[in-house]
Amino acid sequence: MIKLKEALVIAEAALKMARIRQLNPMSVAVLDARGCLVAFQMEDGSSLLREDIAKAKGLSALALGMGTRALVGRAKHHPAFFVGLSALSKGNMIPVPGGVLIRSPLDAAIVGAVGVSGDLPDHDEACAIAGIEATTYSWDAGADPS
Amino acid sequence: MIKLKEALVIAEAALKMARIRQLNPMSVAVLDARGCLVAFQMEDGSSLLREDIAKAKGLSALALGMGTRALVGRAKHHPAFFVGLSALSKGNMIPVPGGVLIRSPLDAAIVGAVGVSGDLPDHDEACAIAGIEATTYSWDAGADPS
Amino acid sequence: MIKLKEALVIAEAALKMARIRQLNPMSVAVLDARGCLVAFQMEDGSSLLREDIAKAKGLSALALGMGTRALVGRAKHHPAFFVGLSALSKGNMIPVPGGVLIRSPLDAAIVGAVGVSGDLPDHDEACAIAGIEATTYSWDAGADPS
Amino acid sequence: MIKLKEALVIAEAALKMARIRQLNPMSVAVLDARGCLVAFQMEDGSSLLREDIAKAKGLSALALGMGTRALVGRAKHHPAFFVGLSALSKGNMIPVPGGVLIRSPLDAAIVGAVGVSGDLPDHDEACAIAGIEATTYSWDAGADPS
Repeated sequence: MIKLKEALVIAEAALKMARIRQLNPMSVAVLDARGCLVAFQMEDGSSLLREDIAKAKGLSALALGMGTRALVGRAKHHPAFFVGLSALSKGNMIPVPGGVLIRSPLDAAIVGAVGVSGDLPDHDEACAIAGIEATTYSWDAGADPS
Repeated sequence: MIKLKEALVIAEAALKMARIRQLNPMSVAVLDARGCLVAFQMEDGSSLLREDIAKAKGLSALALGMGTRALVGRAKHHPAFFVGLSALSKGNMIPVPGGVLIRSPLDAAIVGAVGVSGDLPDHDEACAIAGIEATTYSWDAGADPS
Repeated sequence: MIKLKEALVIAEAALKMARIRQLNPMSVAVLDARGCLVAFQMEDGSSLLREDIAKAKGLSALALGMGTRALVGRAKHHPAFFVGLSALSKGNMIPVPGGVLIRSPLDAAIVGAVGVSGDLPDHDEACAIAGIEATTYSWDAGADPS
Repeated sequence: MIKLKEALVIAEAALKMARIRQLNPMSVAVLDARGCLVAFQMEDGSSLLREDIAKAKGLSALALGMGTRALVGRAKHHPAFFVGLSALSKGNMIPVPGGVLIRSPLDAAIVGAVGVSGDLPDHDEACAIAGIEATTYSWDAGADPS
């Protein structure tokens, strides 16, 4: 599982990317494989729900074992299923990009997830990926087949 | 953050506009930047959920840092995302006009939000704006790009 | 049922009493007989849960048809019952003074309730009573037989 | 309100104290005045609920405007009230030391709170205080009059 030292590297690198790209104030949540928060950082000026959205993106990825980009088309084609998942997960099902799995480079085992919120979903995801790329882990943002 | 004295000015001016326009019984919630209710007033004859809708409109604006008019098109084009946000925020995500941010005229910092419910969304929003215009603060109702 | 004009008189008089007594920042909620919020005012410097506690005190009084002072001894002698009521009411069962029924002076019918939070329960209750006494209604704070 | 840069200083200093004292794996949550998480760090080996407890301690302090040490005696003498607050706050009412207010040294205004969980409450609180002392802010752990 992801360790605190690594989670801090991820959070810092994700926010560094947000500043390079001059994005909106960004929130980044790094979760371990249990869905427990290991590190979280919210930039100044973030709005009220950003913490919850960032965490929910990470939890969505862990919930179904795929990066949240893979959920976009599924949610579109099976809306009733996602309404059900949304209620079942008590809101922790956010089918937009920005929830990225952290995988072991050896056996692809899931060691955690990163959720990012603050700007457009594609930009949020780019920050999550930049965070994981600052470590030796692999990232899995999910593929949208639709 | 918005103060009680200012919040009462906003509520009174919003309801005055509702009477000038002869709208349905109106409820107005003035929230501070924490999402805490500072002042609330519900006109006689209001139906059972108006308090919750008025507060939820204000909370929606604070949650994402934009007036709720900006959420109309987003909700239309990304319904699954808004279903998710609705559950995540425990119902406090109402993507129709009537949730208006209160901003500082100096630096545009968010000092609170007004949520109004009772009539058509456009009329609700007009009352929220009239309330904020009775103070020295700026209003941000959100822009719908769709 | 209590009307907005009367609810504003109650809120104003309750906060006036808080200032006369130099109490902590006070929050006052005036509910109608349905449990809907008619007027709410929170003084500057109030902590994060005051809105919820003030409302919950008023709802507790309406829930059982007695001022919350009458709940103190009952909660002490039947704690398991109040744990159950607390869960059933989703937290809106606060068995300390400060939730006061508003009754018609003619037939004692319940027309609403006032909930106050911010200082010690006895002081909160005194503000609620002062609010109702500024109208022609009668107050019922509940009697603690224990 | 507390800023990210300051929140990271607090979290780092709190965990440094935990290592100096060789305490159990520790979790530290730094919240702003809105109750939003600004920074969070969980040491390796933490059990499943530590994130929630750390956050709930900080939220408890913000909810009532006092450090959680001030809640110990109150909860002992008024258990029914705290059962009610526990439900009302959806579990975010933890009346043991370890939730410490962050105050401005100028006017004592609340700018945030720190919640720490992992070891005995007195040790948790010592870490929270050590965190705040690494900044220019003042801490308010609450006083237990009982």
